[in-house]
Amino acid sequence: MHAFTSVPTGRAAATLALALLPALAGAGPAAAKPTLADVIKASKASDWRPLDAEHTLYLEIPAGRVVIEIAPAFAPRHVANIKALVRERYYDGLAILRSQDNWVVQWGDPDEKNPKPMKTAQRTLAGEFTVPLKSAGAFTRLPDRDGYAAQVGHSNGFPSARDPKSGTAWLAHCYGTVGVGRDNASDSGGGAELYAVIGHAPRHLDRNITVIGRVVAGMPLLSTLPRGAAAMGFYDQPGKNVPISAIRLAADVAPAERSHIEVMRTETATYQAAVEAQRNRGGPWSKVAAGYVELCNAPIPVREQAGN
Amino acid sequence: MHAFTSVPTGRAAATLALALLPALAGAGPAAAKPTLADVIKASKASDWRPLDAEHTLYLEIPAGRVVIEIAPAFAPRHVANIKALVRERYYDGLAILRSQDNWVVQWGDPDEKNPKPMKTAQRTLAGEFTVPLKSAGAFTRLPDRDGYAAQVGHSNGFPSARDPKSGTAWLAHCYGTVGVGRDNASDSGGGAELYAVIGHAPRHLDRNITVIGRVVAGMPLLSTLPRGAAAMGFYDQPGKNVPISAIRLAADVAPAERSHIEVMRTETATYQAAVEAQRNRGGPWSKVAAGYVELCNAPIPVREQAGN
Repeated sequence: MHAFTSVPTGRAAATLALALLPALAGAGPAAAKPTLADVIKASKASDWRPLDAEHTLYLEIPAGRVVIEIAPAFAPRHVANIKALVRERYYDGLAILRSQDNWVVQWGDPDEKNPKPMKTAQRTLAGEFTVPLKSAGAFTRLPDRDGYAAQVGHSNGFPSARDPKSGTAWLAHCYGTVGVGRDNASDSGGGAELYAVIGHAPRHLDRNITVIGRVVAGMPLLSTLPRGAAAMGFYDQPGKNVPISAIRLAADVAPAERSHIEVMRTETATYQAAVEAQRNRGGPWSKVAAGYVELCNAPIPVREQAGN
Repeated sequence: MHAFTSVPTGRAAATLALALLPALAGAGPAAAKPTLADVIKASKASDWRPLDAEHTLYLEIPAGRVVIEIAPAFAPRHVANIKALVRERYYDGLAILRSQDNWVVQWGDPDEKNPKPMKTAQRTLAGEFTVPLKSAGAFTRLPDRDGYAAQVGHSNGFPSARDPKSGTAWLAHCYGTVGVGRDNASDSGGGAELYAVIGHAPRHLDRNITVIGRVVAGMPLLSTLPRGAAAMGFYDQPGKNVPISAIRLAADVAPAERSHIEVMRTETATYQAAVEAQRNRGGPWSKVAAGYVELCNAPIPVREQAGN
């Protein structure tokens, strides 16, 4: 049966569960048009960048480590506040409180009545739902039309969108996107409570909430958490909350204990080839080319750094 | 904290985990524009249809029952073959063999060397990747433009797409879509091996594989399965496979043991209001209306039948 004719999909897939390898069946004999696996195999070292230790969070839960890349360009005040929260060890001992199927997991302070005090960090900030175009840095636009935004593409490895009319840019809600929970008021969040998308991209949240980054490794540790039985997927008993032992900035972790991950540079020709391999898939399995790639369907290859 | 200001989201959400309730925070005071919860609350009995017992499969695994609605109009030969497989108890004792993050779970015969014999069913069939428009039945088109197809909308509760030029229609790959695994050849599947989408909609699979239906209840039982450690998310040891005690057609199950589920009729004005509540969300939480809904982001409300 085809299920067992799988070809090895490379170290990236074997070691990092977030690698978005699209094969449903084995790749079989080589075809003229490259597959994503072919593109990754042919990539050069310069097509990849290591994570910046100052922009990387480790969320430590019983099942292991979730690695989050943060994007200061898109939420400078929230990223600074979250780094302050990390460094005052605010998150250590908090918990994942919510797991709603095809939606989000969310973590924060389980004790509503006696909220954990903060030292230097701020409890709330004005929302950073969009930033001025000039602050958003590099942008590699996808030619594919998007329903939610005038322009979509990638900004240094983050799926992002732009509206030239209003002169704004923002990070898109895709699988793995991490954002800042808030109440009804735009300024009611500050980073004490965060969520990660574990289902189909909820793009209608774009520009409604502050996005601070994305999970680059360890998504299965979040996506397989038991769903909460209370409304909106909250756990119905405190004993079901998933404890967070710590959130650390990679730069504050001893080098020997860091995760060594690299992300394909989204501004490269190699990345364009990777996206094209998804838009019009190569290999003998595909029969009809989509001729299109939707932003959150564009894979962003991630792998362990060579030598680690 | 906002996380705890949640309002009850109704019986549907409490009892059926697939209900796609979009709230990240509580709904708070009533706003002029209705939310999806408002639309569901105001719906009439006639806005809902029960599942047809002849078109409903129960996949029974240790964690419970997954309810799959099948769509004979879109894959008549495969649906007939799968019903034959169910009735000869082919699936009973097989297993879920694969769980790949943000992709699919897949089930079939774990014994590649000694495949389980079939009685009346066929092992392979010609692919039914599309059907003629005239065979596809009712279609309620979304006004929203789609990147993957000329027209998208719903066909009796299934997300579907159409191409008037070629005169074809097909079911779209959204979260929960169920299809027929195959090898490289278009005619190499038959329904002995099936998959369900557990991640972001892989719409590039549309028209490349036979889709036979969608999960309407029990998605968390599949989406939270441990991910497989072998290539493409296959379990790396037989002991990790998830045993299937049975797949049954609801019509063959004693009425007292059936799941009593109803789905909002997608051809109704109420459903149009539900989609609009997602396209331009009501309630005090949303600040910017998306003005657009992507096919797989259009919720299809499901609930337990009244009195059950």
